[in-house]
This record gives sequence, C-alpha cells and structure tokens, in this order.
Amino acid sequence: MDKPNLIVLLTDFGLYDPFVGIMKGVIKSVNPSVEIIDLSHQVKPHSIKEGAFFLYISYKYFPKGSIFVVVVDPGVGSEREILLYKTSDYYFLAPNNGVLSYILPPESVVLKIGGETFKFFPKSEDERIVKIENENFFLKPVSRTFHGRDIFAPVAAYISLGVRMEEFGEEFKGEMIKIPFPRLKYIDQKLYGEVIYSDRFGNLITNIDEESLNKFLNGLKPIINFKNVEIFGLKNSYSEAKKGEPLAIINSFNYLEISVREGSAVEKFLAKEGDEIIVEKI
Amino acid sequence: MDKPNLIVLLTDFGLYDPFVGIMKGVIKSVNPSVEIIDLSHQVKPHSIKEGAFFLYISYKYFPKGSIFVVVVDPGVGSEREILLYKTSDYYFLAPNNGVLSYILPPESVVLKIGGETFKFFPKSEDERIVKIENENFFLKPVSRTFHGRDIFAPVAAYISLGVRMEEFGEEFKGEMIKIPFPRLKYIDQKLYGEVIYSDRFGNLITNIDEESLNKFLNGLKPIINFKNVEIFGLKNSYSEAKKGEPLAIINSFNYLEISVREGSAVEKFLAKEGDEIIVEKI
Amino acid sequence: MDKPNLIVLLTDFGLYDPFVGIMKGVIKSVNPSVEIIDLSHQVKPHSIKEGAFFLYISYKYFPKGSIFVVVVDPGVGSEREILLYKTSDYYFLAPNNGVLSYILPPESVVLKIGGETFKFFPKSEDERIVKIENENFFLKPVSRTFHGRDIFAPVAAYISLGVRMEEFGEEFKGEMIKIPFPRLKYIDQKLYGEVIYSDRFGNLITNIDEESLNKFLNGLKPIINFKNVEIFGLKNSYSEAKKGEPLAIINSFNYLEISVREGSAVEKFLAKEGDEIIVEKI
Repeated sequence: MDKPNLIVLLTDFGLYDPFVGIMKGVIKSVNPSVEIIDLSHQVKPHSIKEGAFFLYISYKYFPKGSIFVVVVDPGVGSEREILLYKTSDYYFLAPNNGVLSYILPPESVVLKIGGETFKFFPKSEDERIVKIENENFFLKPVSRTFHGRDIFAPVAAYISLGVRMEEFGEEFKGEMIKIPFPRLKYIDQKLYGEVIYSDRFGNLITNIDEESLNKFLNGLKPIINFKNVEIFGLKNSYSEAKKGEPLAIINSFNYLEISVREGSAVEKFLAKEGDEIIVEKI
Repeated sequence: MDKPNLIVLLTDFGLYDPFVGIMKGVIKSVNPSVEIIDLSHQVKPHSIKEGAFFLYISYKYFPKGSIFVVVVDPGVGSEREILLYKTSDYYFLAPNNGVLSYILPPESVVLKIGGETFKFFPKSEDERIVKIENENFFLKPVSRTFHGRDIFAPVAAYISLGVRMEEFGEEFKGEMIKIPFPRLKYIDQKLYGEVIYSDRFGNLITNIDEESLNKFLNGLKPIINFKNVEIFGLKNSYSEAKKGEPLAIINSFNYLEISVREGSAVEKFLAKEGDEIIVEKI
Repeated sequence: MDKPNLIVLLTDFGLYDPFVGIMKGVIKSVNPSVEIIDLSHQVKPHSIKEGAFFLYISYKYFPKGSIFVVVVDPGVGSEREILLYKTSDYYFLAPNNGVLSYILPPESVVLKIGGETFKFFPKSEDERIVKIENENFFLKPVSRTFHGRDIFAPVAAYISLGVRMEEFGEEFKGEMIKIPFPRLKYIDQKLYGEVIYSDRFGNLITNIDEESLNKFLNGLKPIINFKNVEIFGLKNSYSEAKKGEPLAIINSFNYLEISVREGSAVEKFLAKEGDEIIVEKI
C-alpha cells in the first residue's frame, strides 16, 4: 500500500454545526500536511445503513493509501469498540456498529444477525484489524458525546503520520457487526427488490444489481412494476425518456434505478426506502 | 496563462450524496497534488441557467490557470458534447448545454435559440475549444449516469497535469448552445426587468445591471415598483434601511437587488424567479 | 505564535450561493499556498450570537497560528469597524459587532450593553488589535454588500503571507461590542438556565456549564425540569438511555444538554432557543 496520505471523512454530522470543522482542526493540529476530503456529512442522523452504503459505493474511487474515517456512531460513549481495519489498499477507522458491512469481504466476518455465522479470517499480511485503545493518541479529556473530535480525528491524523497499527491497540479478535444487504427474492418467475436509497435528484436506487438482473432476464426484456406503473425495458440514458416520464436504468454503481427525466421519482411516486419493485420478463 | 493549478467544481449534485466526494477521489487518484475548491454544489437540479449565472458572477475571482468543471448536465449519457473551452486565463470543462453562456464573448458563438445566429470565432491563439473524446483519459467503463465521475473528474485532473488540449479531442467546430440572458425592456419611459435569482438571505437579484440603470436614469432618481411596493432611491448599504424595511441596492455583482434589512425579501414579497420589476425615474 | 498558515472560515453565507467559493478564489489569488478550512457557513442568517457561540466552542481545536475569518455581518457596508484581533495563539478577523464576544478575555473589553463597563487592555505584547483600513489590501472597487469577498478574504490572505498587523491599520482604541452570554439564575434553591442552541441531531444545548452545575449540586443529584418532563440524574453516554427516551448529559463542550436517544429533542419537546430549564437537587 502507498503511504497513508489522504483522510476521507464520512459522518452524519451535517454542515450546520461546527463539528466537522472542529475535526479538521484537530487533524491539522496533529499533522499539518495531511489532506482531508469530505465524502459526505449528510448521512441521515444515526443511519448506519446509509453510511455503510455510501462508503461501499465510494471507497474504491479514492487513491490507494486513503484513510476513511466513518463517524456514524449512535453508540458514542458506550462500550462499542472503535476499529481500525486495514486492507491491502485502504485504512478504515469506524465504530464496530455495522457501518463497514458492505466493504468487508463476505467470508471474513462473524455475522450475528439472523442466526447465520461466518468467521473472520484476515486474508493476507496486509489485511489487519485492531481495536483502538491507546489513549496516548486521544484528545484528552475524552468527552462522552464527541469521539469524532477526541478519538477518530487524532487517531486518523496519527495514522497519516505513519504510526503503526499495533501502536493503537491489540489485534481485534471479536465479532464485527454486519448489517445484511437487503436480499432479492424470486417468486413465480418474478424478481422482487426494494428501494434502498434515494439521491438528491429524487432517483430511486434499488437493491437489484446488474448482474442479478441480467441472470434473471436471461436475454429477455424486463417489465418493471413500481407503484401501479409499468416501465418497459431499460434506457441507456436519462435523456432517452421524455421530460417528466419515468424510466429504469442501470446506474453508475451498477444497480437498477427508477428515475423521472428532469424530475423527481421520489415526488412523482411518493416513494420511500423499502418500497417494493417487481421485475417480470417478456 | 499560468500553469493549471486549481480545479474548481460547480455542480447540481448537492452535498447529501457522496457524488462530489467521489469526483474528488478520482481527481486525487490521477493528480494527488492538485487542489480542489468547491464553488457550489447546490445549483438547483438540472438548472443550466442557474449554473451559468453562478459561473458568470464567480470565475474572475479565481487565480489565472484555474480549471472550472461544471457538471449541471441533464443530458448526461446522451449525444451532447463535452467541451473544453480555454481562454487566455482559464479552462472551462462543461457539457455543451448552455452552462457556459454568460462567460462566452457575445460574438464568439453560434446562437440557435430564438432564430438569432452568431458565429464562433476563437479570438486568439490562447482561446481554443476542443471536444472531449479521447477515452484514454476516461474512467472505464464509462457509466450512463455519472460522467462527473467517469469523464469530467479524470479529464480535469489530466488538464491539471499539463496534458495538452489536442490530446483530449479535435477542435470543436460545432455550435455552442447559448441561453439568452433575460433582456431589459423599455416602454413608456419605464424600465422593465425581472428577478433572476434569490440568494440564501432571500435577496432578490434582478437582471437590471448598474450600467443600464444609470443610462436609463440619466441622473434622475429611481422609483422601483415591485409587487405593490414602491421603493424610492437606492441605498448605499443594507443598514441604511430600518430592520424589516425593503430596500433597493446595487449588489456586489453590479446588479439591482431588492432586499429586506435583516429579513428575507423572498418571504416578505412571496417573490420568485421571473417576477417583474419596473423602474421609473423622477 | 507559529507562522500564520491556515485560514478558517465561519460565515452565514450558506453553501447554495457561490459566495464562499468566491472568497476562496480571492484568497488563493493572493496566496496560492495557504490552506482553507470551513468551520461552518450555516450560521443562521445575521445571527451574531450563533456565530459567536460557534467560534467559542471551536477555535481552540485549531493549530496555533490559524487565522479565523468570521463573516456574520448584517452591518456590511455601514460604518461598523472590521477588526483584526491577535492573541498569543490566533488571529481573528471579524466585524466589530459582537461576534468575538465569547473568545475575548472578560476584562479586556469595553462593554456597552446593559450599562456595565469594562476597559480593553491588551494583555501582552502578543495580544493586539487593529482596525482594518488600508485599502491597498482590499479588492477594488469595494462593493456595498460583499466585504467577505472584497475585504475579509484578501486581508486574511495577506495575513497568511506574513504582512504585519500595523500595515493593515492603526491600533484600535475604540470599544469592542460584546454580547453578554445568557446568565444563570439561582432562585429558591433552584438553578434556572435556558436553551441557547440546538444541533443537527436535535440536541438542546443549554447555558448551564459543568462547573456551575457541580457547584450548585454540591454533591447532590440533579432533577432537571424541562417542558413538563422531569429527568433524573445525568447519563454518561447517550446509549445509557432507551431509544426515544429523553436524557441529560454534559456534552463535549462542557455544557448541560437535553437529548433524546437516537431521536430529536427539538421535535419531541417542540423546543426552541430561549426555552427555560430548571435544575433542582436531591
């Protein structure tokens, strides 16, 4: 891996309060020369699932060596662990609350939700995980409510200075919390998915990935049923539809998306997370 | 021109989704040392006109050599061109959809709207325009819906690395889309303008520029009619009005602005874009 | 003090308009190598008090030598002074309207509100204050409405280049406007405070600081009365409460805070700034 050189922040702090600015102040106080990039600070308050999804669709576009700091942390101040997970390409500093779920290799975690269990086995010398415990790297006194400032920010800055992982704490041998990704269902030759997220434009992103869709369609054409509307086929660009017309498209993260050209599918359909989408084939 | 050294981002992506962060990740992956500044990401979704206006009132305050990346792009994925327009001072990377309208020299474009026509003639050796076509500078596979990530970001980064214009594509000889700026009308000794934009404070910015206003007034004083209110004369600062009182002022971009001291003219007048403003003189 | 090296921006400009981006363009035009960090731009429009509070809880987390530029400036264009206040650790560039109130040493200002008076005496050679007057450091022509662009940005950039204080103007011998911090009241063995601010999560921050609270309690336990709810005792973390349950906690800035676990106290209590909170002890 390249030398750690860039800190990427992902939080649910918003941009109204000075919290993100303060974190940057702390980082710069420790390492004046590290660069900081905001991934998003508008994760819905306490939405671990949304934070996990944002991280998942984003991290691979950043330079090798980037340090991702994820502070979506409703359990701040409780006994939840703070983990530093290092892969061959990146560092991830986050609470152990599921926010790393979708970037973890499926077989490398212990899953405790829904009764299923997988063991965590680091894959290579490069892949490691430690529990952040060494208070020498914390801002003291550590507050009860703002570990972003007192733990995440300074620890990230020390990582960027080249402090070795083992300095921060012992190898983590516990269980990593993992939130399951909403599953696709196949019933009577129909594919059932759901809306998992809507973006600024009101586009509805579903849990139906391109690969699963193509496998299901097997060369046939899709009819997409959503909220009493039937959409025939997929478009190759938004502009293939008429203004205001609904369309389906494979989006830039390879998921099926319901959109309205130059309009908002959220508003048109009064749609929300969890709404069902059914794909048939002809 | 100075060496390209700074990338300035202007989009309608908002700050909720991780889209802007991802673009920065891509830029930094290509050129780790380039600096990135956000101009605004809150352009109203798909509002080419607002993007064009924001760019127009902003670009000249940036260092020579800055690379402006404008992604207000409702036609993403369609056949609309992506252009790199170079002036003696700046680079502008944008879709050919009108978003560069107000920074173009008036005589240097072919205007297709409303029947009027002007030809584009580059002004000097420094002023050039190419069509972005060389996929070697793209992130592949190029998605259907996120050219900000797959084309604009990496191309901007390569420009900042000093790649020459001709490497990205051929000289553009087509027509540049141009959106006309709302015109002033003069009827019966009155000047008719309109609200073109309202800012965070609820100030109403009109299309009446200082020069046209002064020419119209010719030394007389203005009476400004807006929504059943008459405003006499211009203030020299907001604080010359009483709290809550409406006022007219020449703003920092040299346009006539209707404001309410320490209040919102948008709320007081229930005003919106396109609302008429009439100036008389006494 | 360290060499000035970092400009920190705090404004009420929001992030919709390109105003903040333009300020950064101006700064970079003067000093291409200075770094800029956003503290917040979402201070409520014209809320000097909120700006003062944000600055107060934030500044000490920034590296020594940081230059804070505070543009919450309803009096822009009027005769209000722009001041550069230098302490042993930081520079503060701000209008003289009270926005520096909470960072000033209590005895070092002339207070004109409520009849009380204190004199301003610089504490040491390091602590100085000048009035910004030298137009050589301004962007000209200076507009009536955007001194953030025309005065604050370039002056901050020149400070970061090492221009000496006396170059910007004469020592300021006038009165610094100071807004009093809302006072605690003690009546009949009860402590009366109020909500001074609510954050993105809907947490209610009060004016009751930890030290005053402990002194009042003198080892006893608090009962906190807020809007017909009684909260017994303080929690050590949000997660000690049940989901949706109200709680009281000392927050990361050492003030008493009313929260709802993974919910919004603002929404639950329909709370707002100024709402009374009463602490009893048992």
